[in-house]
Amino acid sequence: MTKIQVAVLGATGNIGQRFIQLLEDHPYFEIQGLYASERSEGKRLKQVLRIKDYPFKEETLEKKIEQLDVKTIASRCRVAFSGLPTDVAKDCEQGLADNGVAVFSNAASHRMRDDVPLLIPEVNSEHIKLVKAQKSFQDGGYIVTNANCSTTGLAIPMSAIYQEYGLRFLCVSTYQAVSGAGYPGVPSLDILGNVVPYIKGEEEKMEAEIFKMLGVISPKGGIKNAAFDMVASCARVPVIDGHIESAAMIMSKDPSVEEITTLLNGFRAEPQRLELPTAPLQPIIVRSEDDRPQPVIDVNAGEPTRARGMAVTVGRIRQSGKYTKMWVLSHNTIRGGAGGSVINAELAKAKKLL
Amino acid sequence: MTKIQVAVLGATGNIGQRFIQLLEDHPYFEIQGLYASERSEGKRLKQVLRIKDYPFKEETLEKKIEQLDVKTIASRCRVAFSGLPTDVAKDCEQGLADNGVAVFSNAASHRMRDDVPLLIPEVNSEHIKLVKAQKSFQDGGYIVTNANCSTTGLAIPMSAIYQEYGLRFLCVSTYQAVSGAGYPGVPSLDILGNVVPYIKGEEEKMEAEIFKMLGVISPKGGIKNAAFDMVASCARVPVIDGHIESAAMIMSKDPSVEEITTLLNGFRAEPQRLELPTAPLQPIIVRSEDDRPQPVIDVNAGEPTRARGMAVTVGRIRQSGKYTKMWVLSHNTIRGGAGGSVINAELAKAKKLL
Amino acid sequence: MTKIQVAVLGATGNIGQRFIQLLEDHPYFEIQGLYASERSEGKRLKQVLRIKDYPFKEETLEKKIEQLDVKTIASRCRVAFSGLPTDVAKDCEQGLADNGVAVFSNAASHRMRDDVPLLIPEVNSEHIKLVKAQKSFQDGGYIVTNANCSTTGLAIPMSAIYQEYGLRFLCVSTYQAVSGAGYPGVPSLDILGNVVPYIKGEEEKMEAEIFKMLGVISPKGGIKNAAFDMVASCARVPVIDGHIESAAMIMSKDPSVEEITTLLNGFRAEPQRLELPTAPLQPIIVRSEDDRPQPVIDVNAGEPTRARGMAVTVGRIRQSGKYTKMWVLSHNTIRGGAGGSVINAELAKAKKLL
Amino acid sequence: MTKIQVAVLGATGNIGQRFIQLLEDHPYFEIQGLYASERSEGKRLKQVLRIKDYPFKEETLEKKIEQLDVKTIASRCRVAFSGLPTDVAKDCEQGLADNGVAVFSNAASHRMRDDVPLLIPEVNSEHIKLVKAQKSFQDGGYIVTNANCSTTGLAIPMSAIYQEYGLRFLCVSTYQAVSGAGYPGVPSLDILGNVVPYIKGEEEKMEAEIFKMLGVISPKGGIKNAAFDMVASCARVPVIDGHIESAAMIMSKDPSVEEITTLLNGFRAEPQRLELPTAPLQPIIVRSEDDRPQPVIDVNAGEPTRARGMAVTVGRIRQSGKYTKMWVLSHNTIRGGAGGSVINAELAKAKKLL
Repeated sequence: MTKIQVAVLGATGNIGQRFIQLLEDHPYFEIQGLYASERSEGKRLKQVLRIKDYPFKEETLEKKIEQLDVKTIASRCRVAFSGLPTDVAKDCEQGLADNGVAVFSNAASHRMRDDVPLLIPEVNSEHIKLVKAQKSFQDGGYIVTNANCSTTGLAIPMSAIYQEYGLRFLCVSTYQAVSGAGYPGVPSLDILGNVVPYIKGEEEKMEAEIFKMLGVISPKGGIKNAAFDMVASCARVPVIDGHIESAAMIMSKDPSVEEITTLLNGFRAEPQRLELPTAPLQPIIVRSEDDRPQPVIDVNAGEPTRARGMAVTVGRIRQSGKYTKMWVLSHNTIRGGAGGSVINAELAKAKKLL
Repeated sequence: MTKIQVAVLGATGNIGQRFIQLLEDHPYFEIQGLYASERSEGKRLKQVLRIKDYPFKEETLEKKIEQLDVKTIASRCRVAFSGLPTDVAKDCEQGLADNGVAVFSNAASHRMRDDVPLLIPEVNSEHIKLVKAQKSFQDGGYIVTNANCSTTGLAIPMSAIYQEYGLRFLCVSTYQAVSGAGYPGVPSLDILGNVVPYIKGEEEKMEAEIFKMLGVISPKGGIKNAAFDMVASCARVPVIDGHIESAAMIMSKDPSVEEITTLLNGFRAEPQRLELPTAPLQPIIVRSEDDRPQPVIDVNAGEPTRARGMAVTVGRIRQSGKYTKMWVLSHNTIRGGAGGSVINAELAKAKKLL
Repeated sequence: MTKIQVAVLGATGNIGQRFIQLLEDHPYFEIQGLYASERSEGKRLKQVLRIKDYPFKEETLEKKIEQLDVKTIASRCRVAFSGLPTDVAKDCEQGLADNGVAVFSNAASHRMRDDVPLLIPEVNSEHIKLVKAQKSFQDGGYIVTNANCSTTGLAIPMSAIYQEYGLRFLCVSTYQAVSGAGYPGVPSLDILGNVVPYIKGEEEKMEAEIFKMLGVISPKGGIKNAAFDMVASCARVPVIDGHIESAAMIMSKDPSVEEITTLLNGFRAEPQRLELPTAPLQPIIVRSEDDRPQPVIDVNAGEPTRARGMAVTVGRIRQSGKYTKMWVLSHNTIRGGAGGSVINAELAKAKKLL
Repeated sequence: MTKIQVAVLGATGNIGQRFIQLLEDHPYFEIQGLYASERSEGKRLKQVLRIKDYPFKEETLEKKIEQLDVKTIASRCRVAFSGLPTDVAKDCEQGLADNGVAVFSNAASHRMRDDVPLLIPEVNSEHIKLVKAQKSFQDGGYIVTNANCSTTGLAIPMSAIYQEYGLRFLCVSTYQAVSGAGYPGVPSLDILGNVVPYIKGEEEKMEAEIFKMLGVISPKGGIKNAAFDMVASCARVPVIDGHIESAAMIMSKDPSVEEITTLLNGFRAEPQRLELPTAPLQPIIVRSEDDRPQPVIDVNAGEPTRARGMAVTVGRIRQSGKYTKMWVLSHNTIRGGAGGSVINAELAKAKKLL
C-alpha cells in the first residue's frame, strides 16, 4: 500500500515537531517534506530542535527544512499538517485547500468559520461533514481545525458530562505549560519561579470554542452552538508540557462522584469504535490518588504507545454543595495540538474524505 | 520607652523567620528569644536559615535557638508570635495564654473557635474584642489568629467588594508558593516543572474561614458568619513566595471595572487610620498592566519599607457577562503569615490590649 | 526457563523504583518482592510513587511494599538489588550475602572494601572476580557495588581515554540533579532558581572512587589503584534527572579532537561483546551540536529501548593549549544507579556467578 | 550642586534597567533620558519592564524611552552608560566619545582595545589612565568598559590572591544565570529543569579578559598582560540572577585556608579608600557556612544599601593536595554589569576625568 504523502508546515516550531514525532512511523501517512518560513530554510531538523523528550531517529534529525510554497507543496502532497503561526496560516492554508490539499490545522485562523469543523473526534466527529460546504471541497481541498490547546483537554470530559448530565455552569482556571506559546515563546526571565496570569486571547477562545464544539449540526447548515454559563481564567506556569485546569461546575442532574467516575472512565467514542491508529483505548482516565493529575506524571497518558499523550487525565472529582469540582490535564501540544490534527486526519480517511 | 519583650515560636521555620525579619527593627516590639522544638535547640539562626531573600543582621544570624518551654517563655515575654506547626501549636499556645501571654498565631489550631478572633485588621478589626471572652483574658493572656495564607490575600479585596457591592458567588483557584508548606515542605522532586493540584485541607479552610472573617459580632457573642456561594480549588506551583489566585464572582450590584478599580485602590481601613507601623499606606494596589500581578514582581508590594509584602495586588479586573474576574496576589508568609500576626499585635496595642 | 527471583530493597526511594522500572520486563530476572523500611510497610507502590516519567504497569503500581527482613528475603530470592540508604545498607547487605544472596548495591557502604568490586562492566569487568575473596562466597552470597552517580558517568569516557592516551590531570565540576539526593531529598525551597555548591562527601567520593575503578587487579589480591591528579567540585542544580559535568584534562599523548571523538564513539567493551540485555549498543555517544549534552535531551540516551538511560553522552570536545575540555552527561539514577547494578548482575550471570 | 546629566543606553534591556535602578537616587549622577533602539521608542519603562525584584518609583516607570541618536544625546549629556547589544554598541559608543561624551560601557565591542581600560576599580584602578591615549580624549570624550559578567566576579578575589600568593593555574566552571543573556534571551523551553553547557564566546572571553585586567600599564603604553594557565567551561543554569563559579587553582605560595580567608575578607582597594558611593565596604565576603555562596541568598551581598549586589561572595575554601578550591558568586548584571560601569564612572569623577 502506498502511504499518503503529507507535508509538515511550521516544522521549526513546537507543534510542527510534534507532528513529525507522531508521523515518523505512521501506518498510512508518510512525511514528504518539512516546511517552514524562509529564515530556517536549508537547516536540518537537528539544528532547530525544540522537542527534547522524544528521541527522533537520526535520519529524521538530518532532514532539511524547505521553504513554504503553496504550489510546490500542493504538487507533492495530498495532506498538509499545519503548525504555522496564525498570521502566516490564514492565507497559506486557504491557498493549499484551493489547490486540492486537505489541511489539518492547529492554527486559530479558520476555527470559527461556519464551514470549518473545529473537530475533536471524541466530541463531535459528525462535524467533519462541514468540509463539504467549503468551496474548495469539489477539488478535494479543505480545512479541518483542532481546537485551542486549553479548550481541547477540557472539552473531552465536559462533552461526556454535558451529554449525560447536562451542564448549567462551568468555571475554569488554567495552569498552562510554556510549550503552548511556541518557540522561542516565553522568555525564561519571565517565568522561572513565577506565574504569568495572562495569555493573550486565550480566555476569549475558551469561552467561545467550547460552545461550537459541543454544538450540533444545524439543518440549515453550520453549527447550532451549545449554551451554558462559562467563565475562564488563564495563566502560564513554569511547566514544559501539559495544561492542567481546575474546573467547578453545576450540572443539570445530580450524579454522585462514583457515577461521574464510572461515566468518564467508561467513555468511548467514534475514534475508539473506528480504531483510529492515534486514538487512545481509554480517552479519559480518572485517577484515584489524592494529588493527581500532575503534568510530569500524566502528560503522556494514553495507550497504546502510538497514543501516548492523547488521553485526558481527570482527578480529584469532589463535590461542595451544588458544585462539582475536578482537575483536568492533557498534553497541550499532542492532544491539544499536533495529535489532535493527526487523529482528525485519521477520521477523515475513515470517512472516505481522503 | 522600654520595648515589649516578645518570643518567636517556631524560629526554625519559614513563618518563624519572617517574624524575626519583621521584628528585627520594630518600633515597639523587641525579640527576647527564638524558640523551637528540641531538635534544633542550641543551633544558631544562620545554621537553619530558611528565608533567602532577606539580609538578616549578622548579630541576628548568631542568635541561638532555645527550647520551647511554656513557663520559661511566660516568665520572659508579654507577647508570643507563633509560627508553630499545628500539632504543637494547640497546647503550647493555650498554655502560654493561660500563663498571661498574648499569643498572635499563624497556626490553624484555634482559628475557628468562637472566642478567638480570626483577624485581619483591614477586614474585621472589631473582631479583636472576642479575646475578652477567653477565660485567660482576666490575667492578660489570650490568643489571636491570622487567617490561612490563601484566604488572607483574597479576603482583603473581597471584603471591600462585599461591603460596597455585595457578593453572591465567588469561585477561586489558587496558585500557591512552596513556602506555604513550610520547611523542608515540598520536595523538589515533586514540584520542579510541575503543578500539584492538592493541598491537604486547604480548600476546606478557604471555604470556611472567609465567612467567619466577613461576619459581624453577634449580640449574643461570637460571630454571625457572612453567607454567599463559594467554591475553591487549590494547587501548588513552583514559586518560592507569593500566592496568586484567580477569582470569578457575581456581585449583588453591577459596578463597572473603573468603579471597582477606584474602590480597591482607594480602600483604607482601621490600620491605616491608626497608622500601625506594619500597615501598608495603600493596602490594595490595582495594577493596570495586562499581565499583572505576578509573584516575582508584586510579592513585596507595600509602602513604607516596613510594610513591604503587606499590600495585596489586584490585576486584570474584567467582566464577562454577569461575572467579574480578577487576579489577586499576596505574600503568603508575610501578609498571609507572620506580617498578619504582627499587624494584629499592633492593633492589640492600639486598642490597649497590650 | 524459570526466571531468577530478585528482591528490590529500598523500594520507596528513587533508586529502588528505577530498579523496579528496569526489572518490570527483564528477560531473566523477576521481581519477587518490594522491600523497604517499616514506615511504608503495607503501602502500595502507587502510594509512594517517586519516579514520574515512567509509566509503570497498573499491576506493578498495586504491588505492596513489604518489611525488610534478611531471613525472609534470603529464603525467597537468589539476588537482591539494593537502593537502601547507606546507614541501613551496611548490615542488611552483609546479612543477605552471609545468607547466600548475591547483592548488587547502589549504596556506598561497601564500595571501598578490598574484596568488593566497584564495578562498571564497560570499565573494569574483570574486577568482578574480587567477590571470590568474600567469605560468604562459598555459600553463593556476595556483594557487588556500583559507583557513585557522579563518578560513573565520568568514569566511562575517562576509562577509554586513560587506556588509549593516558591521563595526567583531570579537573571536574558537576551539575547534579536533585534525584541524586533521594526522596524527599532536596527541599524545593532550597533549590528552585538556585544552585547549591555543596553535596556532603561527594567530592571526596569522586576523588577516590575513580582510582579504584581504573585500577588493575593486583597479583597479591585487591586492586592496584590508578594514579593521576584529580580535583572535583560538586554542586546541585534544579534539574530532575541527569548529572552533567565539565571536565578539563591533560592527557599523556596529544590526540586531536577528531581522534578523541572517533575513540569515544567507537568504544565497545565487555557488556557489548556479551550482549548483556541492559547494555547500550553504543555506550558513549559524542554529540556534534554546539550545545550538547543537555540533561533534558540526552538523559535517556541509549539503545535498544531496554538500555535507555544507560549511554553516556559527551559533547563539546575542544582544546585550549595543553588542556582538552569536554562535557559529560549520564542518567544518575539509571546509569549511575539502578541500571549500573542491573548490568552488574547481568555480567555476574554471564560469568556464571549466578 | 548640579548633578551630572547621564544617558542610559539600551534602556529596554536587563543591563539598561539595572543602570536605571542604580542611578535612580545617585548622589551625583542624574538620569537625563532613557534611550533604546527604534522598536521601543515612545513606550514607557513600565511597558518594557525586565527587572522584577526592584521596586522602581512610579515616576521612573512612567518615563518614556527615546530613540538612540548620537548627536541628541551628546547635546544633552556629559556621560552615557551603555547597556547596548554588541552590534549596536561599537559605532554608537565611539560616536558619542567623538562628540565629547564619557561612555561607560558594558558591551564587549571595545574591551580588548589597547587604549580602552577594562576596568574593575578594586582590581586595576590605575588602568583608567589609558583613556588619555584615546583620540577623543582632548575633547573630553572617551570609552571605559567593564568586564564580562563571568570574569568580573572571578577577577576580584583572583586579583587579591594573585597579588599576595601568585597564581600558576586556574580552572573555572561557571553556573550562569539567565539574565546574563539579556531579554528575551534564553527561551524557557530551553532552560526549565535543564543545564545548557554552551554560551557563545564566553569561555574565550574569560580566558582572555582576566590577563588584561591583572596586567600592568606598560611604560610603552598599553597593558602588559598577566600570565598563568587558565581553563574555563561555561554553562547556563535556571537561575534568574547571580553567576556562581567553581574555581580550582595552584598558587605560587602555599597559604592555609585561614590565611586565604583572612586575606579575602580583609581585602580593601581604591574604591573603598576613595569611598565611592557604589563601592561595597567589604568587596569580598567569605562565608563560613558549608553550603554557601548560593545565588538566591548571596546575589545581593554588599553594604551599604547603595552597594547591594556589588560585593563578591566566596565560600567553601578548601584544599586537596596542591590544589586550592573555592566557589565564587557575584551579581552578574550589577557587579558584573551596570554596577561595574557606575563604579567606573565614580572612579573617573574621583580622578577628575569628569
